[in-house]
Amino acid sequence: MNLSLGPRGFSQEISADADVGKRRVVIEGVVPEIDDGRFPIKRIVGDTVQLEADIFADGHDELSAVLLYRHSAEDEWTEVPMQMLVNDRWRGGFPVLCLGTYLYTFMAWVNEFITWRRDLEKKVAAGLDVAVELLMGAELLMQSCRRAGGEEAAFLDGWATILRDESLSQSTRVDLAMADRLGLLASKWQDRRSAASYPKDLRVTVDRDKARYGTWYELFPRSCSQEPGWHGTLKDCENHLEYVASMGFDVLYLPPIHPIGSTNRKGRNNAPVARSDDPGSPWAIGGEAGGHKSIEPRLGDLDDFRSLLATAHGHGMEIAMDLSIQCSPDHPWVKEHPEWFRWRPDGTIQFAENPPKKYQDIYPVDFGTDRWPELWEELRSVVLFWIEQGVRMFRVDNPHTKPFGFWEWLIGDIKGRFPEVIFLSEAFTRPKIMYRLAKLGFTQSYTYFAWRNTKWELTEYFRELNETAVHEYFRPNLWPNTPDILTGYMQVGGRPAFMIRLVLAATLSPSYGIYGPAFELCENVAKEPGSEEYLNSEKYEIKNWDLESAHSLKDFITQVNQVRKDNKALQMDGNVRFHPIDNELLLCYSKQSRDRSNVILVIANLDYVYVQSGWVNLPLEFLGIDPLEPYELCDLMDGSCYIWHGPRNYVELNPHVAPAHIFRLPANPRG
Amino acid sequence: MNLSLGPRGFSQEISADADVGKRRVVIEGVVPEIDDGRFPIKRIVGDTVQLEADIFADGHDELSAVLLYRHSAEDEWTEVPMQMLVNDRWRGGFPVLCLGTYLYTFMAWVNEFITWRRDLEKKVAAGLDVAVELLMGAELLMQSCRRAGGEEAAFLDGWATILRDESLSQSTRVDLAMADRLGLLASKWQDRRSAASYPKDLRVTVDRDKARYGTWYELFPRSCSQEPGWHGTLKDCENHLEYVASMGFDVLYLPPIHPIGSTNRKGRNNAPVARSDDPGSPWAIGGEAGGHKSIEPRLGDLDDFRSLLATAHGHGMEIAMDLSIQCSPDHPWVKEHPEWFRWRPDGTIQFAENPPKKYQDIYPVDFGTDRWPELWEELRSVVLFWIEQGVRMFRVDNPHTKPFGFWEWLIGDIKGRFPEVIFLSEAFTRPKIMYRLAKLGFTQSYTYFAWRNTKWELTEYFRELNETAVHEYFRPNLWPNTPDILTGYMQVGGRPAFMIRLVLAATLSPSYGIYGPAFELCENVAKEPGSEEYLNSEKYEIKNWDLESAHSLKDFITQVNQVRKDNKALQMDGNVRFHPIDNELLLCYSKQSRDRSNVILVIANLDYVYVQSGWVNLPLEFLGIDPLEPYELCDLMDGSCYIWHGPRNYVELNPHVAPAHIFRLPANPRG
Repeated sequence: MNLSLGPRGFSQEISADADVGKRRVVIEGVVPEIDDGRFPIKRIVGDTVQLEADIFADGHDELSAVLLYRHSAEDEWTEVPMQMLVNDRWRGGFPVLCLGTYLYTFMAWVNEFITWRRDLEKKVAAGLDVAVELLMGAELLMQSCRRAGGEEAAFLDGWATILRDESLSQSTRVDLAMADRLGLLASKWQDRRSAASYPKDLRVTVDRDKARYGTWYELFPRSCSQEPGWHGTLKDCENHLEYVASMGFDVLYLPPIHPIGSTNRKGRNNAPVARSDDPGSPWAIGGEAGGHKSIEPRLGDLDDFRSLLATAHGHGMEIAMDLSIQCSPDHPWVKEHPEWFRWRPDGTIQFAENPPKKYQDIYPVDFGTDRWPELWEELRSVVLFWIEQGVRMFRVDNPHTKPFGFWEWLIGDIKGRFPEVIFLSEAFTRPKIMYRLAKLGFTQSYTYFAWRNTKWELTEYFRELNETAVHEYFRPNLWPNTPDILTGYMQVGGRPAFMIRLVLAATLSPSYGIYGPAFELCENVAKEPGSEEYLNSEKYEIKNWDLESAHSLKDFITQVNQVRKDNKALQMDGNVRFHPIDNELLLCYSKQSRDRSNVILVIANLDYVYVQSGWVNLPLEFLGIDPLEPYELCDLMDGSCYIWHGPRNYVELNPHVAPAHIFRLPANPRG
Repeated sequence: MNLSLGPRGFSQEISADADVGKRRVVIEGVVPEIDDGRFPIKRIVGDTVQLEADIFADGHDELSAVLLYRHSAEDEWTEVPMQMLVNDRWRGGFPVLCLGTYLYTFMAWVNEFITWRRDLEKKVAAGLDVAVELLMGAELLMQSCRRAGGEEAAFLDGWATILRDESLSQSTRVDLAMADRLGLLASKWQDRRSAASYPKDLRVTVDRDKARYGTWYELFPRSCSQEPGWHGTLKDCENHLEYVASMGFDVLYLPPIHPIGSTNRKGRNNAPVARSDDPGSPWAIGGEAGGHKSIEPRLGDLDDFRSLLATAHGHGMEIAMDLSIQCSPDHPWVKEHPEWFRWRPDGTIQFAENPPKKYQDIYPVDFGTDRWPELWEELRSVVLFWIEQGVRMFRVDNPHTKPFGFWEWLIGDIKGRFPEVIFLSEAFTRPKIMYRLAKLGFTQSYTYFAWRNTKWELTEYFRELNETAVHEYFRPNLWPNTPDILTGYMQVGGRPAFMIRLVLAATLSPSYGIYGPAFELCENVAKEPGSEEYLNSEKYEIKNWDLESAHSLKDFITQVNQVRKDNKALQMDGNVRFHPIDNELLLCYSKQSRDRSNVILVIANLDYVYVQSGWVNLPLEFLGIDPLEPYELCDLMDGSCYIWHGPRNYVELNPHVAPAHIFRLPANPRG
């Protein structure tokens, strides 16, 4: 007999599974599920994963559905009952208490006892005789009884006897059949041989809190010397930590600290020929002193680095290491592994380029090499080396120019051993590639934030990041500036522009960072018109920053970071919601903590020149505000408080005084 | 060496596939693709399947992508180049010329030659020396040459020589490198060992045109006698075909024509006890004269049925057979296969019920039986039996109360043998079940149309059916009435309501049907208030209809069906688009043929009592109308023509004269 079940059906041989024809339940439309389960969603330790699915069968029978989950290190699944919401949509949830990977899936089946009970009620309501129905219920109980054991079996057996007992009235027996405990036990011991199992085990990557909420500061250690003109060291950097920590930063990201090549070294302002005292670009990695596992001798040695790590930890900070997979012509790999590079017909290696831009001091590694397995191994050993030194955060340079398969393997391998490691993707490229990298495993990602300046741009972009499936796997880390990026907005807008961009970065995402001290000192002179490069860029020379400048934004930054620390709504992701305000230069959005006890409302003036005013129109129900009662807003920056009534209220912001209100609203009683 | 590539990665053993690390291209986001490829999309012979996918790699290299397709009966794939649209979105298409199943998938790879040529152009534009680049290009050509053969190899070899020829200037060689033929041949013979293959073969079910465009008429043959009070026969029905065909119908659907049981036979108006001359419900299938493979003796015999089929074909009509999987207590299966029924503790079989409704004359078949394989086989043999008689269309009664797996198997099996067979799903149940049945293989589906009467209801529902992925697998067949459904709108609205609902059904979907002659005679008396059952329902008695009644809508119906025949826009699916009109009782929508040569604009008055007027606001660009020029609309129902200017125009409709305009617009020049 040929009972084939279609090209994606079950088994072709009926004898192999006698229940195949009885499987009636469908489980589909699972949310969240990324690309058909190809990729995990991301969560933080302590989160509850909330799931929904469409679960239904033919006909009108009652169903039971459970969510099954386990940590990948456990063998046993934990079962959680799901609840039907409406229109065949079901919901369930489970807590993720450990780092690493959790798996989840679903199972559902026709609940014959509950179906019987529902039909019994209908018949009783229609005034019908239910003598036979009571016998059928007893038979269902006996079936459960035979699967149960001990006291539960005895209980079920007893109630089956009662349902059959004609010395009791039908109405008494019907009432007894409705008992909660009976329903639970009969359901518990339902026959699940015909249950539908969701065909996939979906995954959750569970990270530590810093993967979601972190306040980053980028710094060139060689500019940390107290002596103008001297090459700073890791020791100088260590002395600098207190300054950074005092502003409220908890991650210090260091550009590459490896030996810098001398061949084709770049001079100041990217000059093709360096002067003898030019330090070169830290991204031209590798020289006589070693490669990716070595430290530039002028910065110090591994002991200095470990000391820096320890002191940073003492300040409540972590060090994020740079991972740039590229070499100076003097990198040891060039000699030891010429097969890892792409040789041209003239016997040279093509330096990195993006015509007309040239990076003569940098050789790309050739991932197309036939010896890619050894190359991959070596790169993993680099990451493991720094993990051994105590590093747990990596900021990965240009991951989008290396194969996706490499990242999936590398990050999967490392996080399999050290689930606390955080990888930040520094990719500025096309959207699908940005998102792919996040799906493949990057913990956090750089974004287009730096170039989103208008209300429309910000709203569209942050809706995409917050209100679509993107927020399940892509954790934005917002940078108003980097050593490569000084946007036109900041070049032109001066100090108010820096303040606006800081508030936006710090409140639109729980993770953000600045490249300092250029940022707090409002360094905004471009190399040339139309360029986003700094004039006298720190990438090519040692800077001596005036940290005590009266113009420094450090107090403002300190205050913003304190507001972030005090308000857990600002430490959550996926919770930005925009609200109408009738001025194209004003932006209004709120963030609420999961339990809604903390509600933040930000209103920012995007105009760095003029005072702007307008009327907000708040969704009071969403914010948990009684539309008939007055409510108080307190500006967490200047401490001023306002009493508002109803949804429409007037706001006025002077960018030269304060570019934004960061209001705290009353706790949302819906929490 | 352990280079595992994550839980869904490639091979764990590197040695098994030396190119795994070089696979750089991603193919994802395929549209259309139903439930991750679990189900096929549906098309009609002669259609072109248009596909899009996100295709990208790391870095900035140029890619090539192809769509691969084949009929399931062929072994060879046909390759079609895809075009990049924007933002890593690619498009391709292929024609489906045969009935049955087509498979499609994708392949993409880095095109090194085109990448090289692009970079060469950039360098030339930047004024750089490209001597080495030309050598590299020659090397790429030689690689292609080694894979090519014959003349193409010679051609590539020759051009490689030219690129290396230093007696020619660089600029001459660069120009030569840009030749189209060179690009095509070099691309054709690219190394595809590192190409990405889409991991799934997706499917298209290709049906004949009637699966999309059909005009259905439902008729009880037993009411076809010319003699009032007599039981009509299939011969009488045959004489009736000309009447039906003259109105423009091309599918005649017959309620079950099998023997009707006598046990618990229903009397008129669903009376629990029948009188001796009551014919019973045709859905109480099976009696002494046989079951699902027999014909009710009072209707005639198999010869009469085959004669009916032949005459129908002569009128350009097909017969759609009913498939109701249920039995009267007298059905032979009850005795021969008691194991296919669910027995109660008192030794009875539970009749069908939906408390308080009871169907004492019908036993459901128990798909939960352990002997389901035999049951499935028998049901397939029923379908095959009628196919043998010449039937190619089945209207399936209540498929939602039978297991999904059964339908997927049955329809897959039947269409594997007879791909021209059409199955219409008569399911009125929750939306996810309706859609699941369509995905599993039903060619067409009944809908909620009968209960969608307001502008909002119609707009929401038909947007879902036309503008979402639903239209890829769910082909609506709209019925304003059926023997079970006389909606409140039609009970109250009288003749204008019948006309409105007919125009909507006939123009909102290429397939629609009516239950006649009840429909054309505007039969609208319900059994009782709040019921959708007809008083003196034809389900339980023989009717004698006055087909020549002066009130009959037959001329109106004939005209509407002629408009459908003359306008291919009305024969297409998925092409309804709604347009604004400033009156909640007026509905405006357009349909365009694929080539846009035929553009239909419908404006309907949903109010069956009052004249309604309003201003439409047409999307002129979408309709291909020059906003600065006047344009002519001709009403295909009354032949009147109007000259309109611009998007806003006035419309007024009197439901007692004509409930709707069906305008033909000028051909869309964008076609």
